[in-house]
Amino acid sequence: MNSFPVAKSAIYSIKHQICALCRGFYQQGWASGTGGGISIRTQDRIFMAPSGVEKEKIEPDDIFELDLDGSVLQAPVNKDLRLSECAPLFMAAYELRSAGAVLHSHSLQVVLATMLATPAAPPYRVIEFSELEMIKGLPGHGYHDTFRLPVIPNTARERDLTASLRQAILDWPDTCAVAVQNHGIYVWGANASKAKTQAECIDYLCQVLIEKRRLGLHQ
Amino acid sequence: MNSFPVAKSAIYSIKHQICALCRGFYQQGWASGTGGGISIRTQDRIFMAPSGVEKEKIEPDDIFELDLDGSVLQAPVNKDLRLSECAPLFMAAYELRSAGAVLHSHSLQVVLATMLATPAAPPYRVIEFSELEMIKGLPGHGYHDTFRLPVIPNTARERDLTASLRQAILDWPDTCAVAVQNHGIYVWGANASKAKTQAECIDYLCQVLIEKRRLGLHQ
Amino acid sequence: MNSFPVAKSAIYSIKHQICALCRGFYQQGWASGTGGGISIRTQDRIFMAPSGVEKEKIEPDDIFELDLDGSVLQAPVNKDLRLSECAPLFMAAYELRSAGAVLHSHSLQVVLATMLATPAAPPYRVIEFSELEMIKGLPGHGYHDTFRLPVIPNTARERDLTASLRQAILDWPDTCAVAVQNHGIYVWGANASKAKTQAECIDYLCQVLIEKRRLGLHQ
Amino acid sequence: MNSFPVAKSAIYSIKHQICALCRGFYQQGWASGTGGGISIRTQDRIFMAPSGVEKEKIEPDDIFELDLDGSVLQAPVNKDLRLSECAPLFMAAYELRSAGAVLHSHSLQVVLATMLATPAAPPYRVIEFSELEMIKGLPGHGYHDTFRLPVIPNTARERDLTASLRQAILDWPDTCAVAVQNHGIYVWGANASKAKTQAECIDYLCQVLIEKRRLGLHQ
Repeated sequence: MNSFPVAKSAIYSIKHQICALCRGFYQQGWASGTGGGISIRTQDRIFMAPSGVEKEKIEPDDIFELDLDGSVLQAPVNKDLRLSECAPLFMAAYELRSAGAVLHSHSLQVVLATMLATPAAPPYRVIEFSELEMIKGLPGHGYHDTFRLPVIPNTARERDLTASLRQAILDWPDTCAVAVQNHGIYVWGANASKAKTQAECIDYLCQVLIEKRRLGLHQ
Repeated sequence: MNSFPVAKSAIYSIKHQICALCRGFYQQGWASGTGGGISIRTQDRIFMAPSGVEKEKIEPDDIFELDLDGSVLQAPVNKDLRLSECAPLFMAAYELRSAGAVLHSHSLQVVLATMLATPAAPPYRVIEFSELEMIKGLPGHGYHDTFRLPVIPNTARERDLTASLRQAILDWPDTCAVAVQNHGIYVWGANASKAKTQAECIDYLCQVLIEKRRLGLHQ
Repeated sequence: MNSFPVAKSAIYSIKHQICALCRGFYQQGWASGTGGGISIRTQDRIFMAPSGVEKEKIEPDDIFELDLDGSVLQAPVNKDLRLSECAPLFMAAYELRSAGAVLHSHSLQVVLATMLATPAAPPYRVIEFSELEMIKGLPGHGYHDTFRLPVIPNTARERDLTASLRQAILDWPDTCAVAVQNHGIYVWGANASKAKTQAECIDYLCQVLIEKRRLGLHQ
Repeated sequence: MNSFPVAKSAIYSIKHQICALCRGFYQQGWASGTGGGISIRTQDRIFMAPSGVEKEKIEPDDIFELDLDGSVLQAPVNKDLRLSECAPLFMAAYELRSAGAVLHSHSLQVVLATMLATPAAPPYRVIEFSELEMIKGLPGHGYHDTFRLPVIPNTARERDLTASLRQAILDWPDTCAVAVQNHGIYVWGANASKAKTQAECIDYLCQVLIEKRRLGLHQ
């Protein structure tokens, strides 16, 4: 986990990092409409993007600052902004995985991959990846390992995913992500860079899965 | 609907917004060739992009300024520019839906989706989307709702779409958009941001539909 | 055809335009490797990009300046640069169609579409497009017209295409472009903007053709 | 091979070139996660990107400087950075092909193409390309030639590929690249521009192969 002093310049830097990451997510197609988001944790603070706004246009002043329990310490200057709907889901990864950052993506590749998932121990479905170099980008996995990405059912409200996401994090100790059927994915990492690169690897793996299916190359 | 004073600086700001949105549309593939466009309404003015020009190169001085009835108050500096062919279609959304902004896109995803549309009450075809998180980005729709996008037949001249688009807006009260067979889509919203993000959601939904068809995942 | 004084500032402006267009082509995937290029004609000059270089890195000083017969008046500062291999092909469009600009693209969409072409009067194959709004972006074509894009066989050297391209331009008076099997396309227009937007329309039409084939929507 | 004085400004320029190329690779999808990389050789130095970092964020101070035998002369300012895992593989191309630059890409197009490879003399598989203009972008190949891209099996550690990559370079004298099953590709060239443009051509060729398979156009 990232640990550096929470100086004013450092806070502004993290807020800038969140904005830059959100712009990158939009470019990648992970945050079209107003979906997607990211949260970063420091020694004693958690920073989150707001909810329901165009992620490619977020400014540092739009970022929420919370304490480690998830209580808002400083709301954005713009009083119309609401805290990310993903807040309890981000908090689950911080609490249960000691994450340094958590992101939420509506990646089309992931959503299509959830449609190709196979049954696992209820209530889960699973997407399995093996024999692909990009698996090495995920913590604890080598080229010859199988990466199993759990899929939980979607709910009408994002916050209603909290219980099942928390349970999935506990039931699947080898994963750094949980996918949500027809919705997207939550990916955490030791810091923002790792969360982002791990999300990129998973996206790549999902795209290979879809392409193999299209090319008739799956078992 | 957006309501702020129509000060000179505000007008210039809206014109800049239209240019920025058009550049974004071009990046998204919604305005290649010279297709696509957007219009924004304020308290007492309507602003529209010109017709038949490269949308990614529009400048604020190229924007038409109209009154709320659609009469041109100020034409662009460049006298070779003509008002958007979509003008009567944009006006239909302003009049019948109290829209704050209306956009027109030639998105390939939407065009392909119109080819996958199914028959509805004549003269309409319809594209139906359900069980996808991105449906939540459309006003009045939750995850478990079905979004029905009406499709009207195309005509040789854009202005000849006016009557059928107006009728579609009346016949389909739950939609924020009307697709045109083999042509594209008109999307409106309470303001430019909403029109754009709603268009992104529809694009995403169309892309899922197409991909599901390619993967053999449709009913 | 563009007609403005060939002042030094105007020449520099056209050279800049060629560089900007080449960067755009590279972004679009039309000029990867070192393929693709564009030429612009004024009242008494023709300007051409060099051959075999990364198109996204071309500078104004790399542009060749020729007279209307295609003789080089001013070679680039960098003596290692050679005139575009497409020169005789560009000259064909200037001579036979009074074009203001001609571009060459290795667009993947076009190359795949040439593989879906059907036989026409020998030696031609043809790709036909109908009932698509983007056909209106091509000169002389309305929504209900059919755009017929002729395809000529490829040759080992670009210059060896000259005779068949010239003949195709004469045999197909309604087209603004000639495709080359497994290679790409030559598109001309009254000026650089039209050449570019017409190329974008053709690219879009080819992509629809390919997607319809993938979705099983073709006759 | 590039040969110019190894002046301090030239070194900084090469380091900048590596950073710019890595950013380009990331844009192309060749270096998502932390995959991919590039190395450039001068008269008496070899420069390499570091391992396991986001390639689009590399700075000139992150580049390793080595002598022609591959020994590190100057490590980056940031002591946490490690030399690229690809180092012995890059050195193989320098030694066996007198390359001026070598790149490594995790291109999805290449990875999918390796899944469509056919058996060759063991231990190799091969991907064959013919009758495509872009083949001309590869050294020693004309339009009517067949480009044969050898594929070697992947290993758990990148360095364990060294022996088989060296052997492939010796066994396939006509290629400027070796693909690695389910992993990616190593491409070399006389200089960085050629390595990059040749990689773009191979990527394009792989994409055509995949698309032809999807369209049912393969033999």
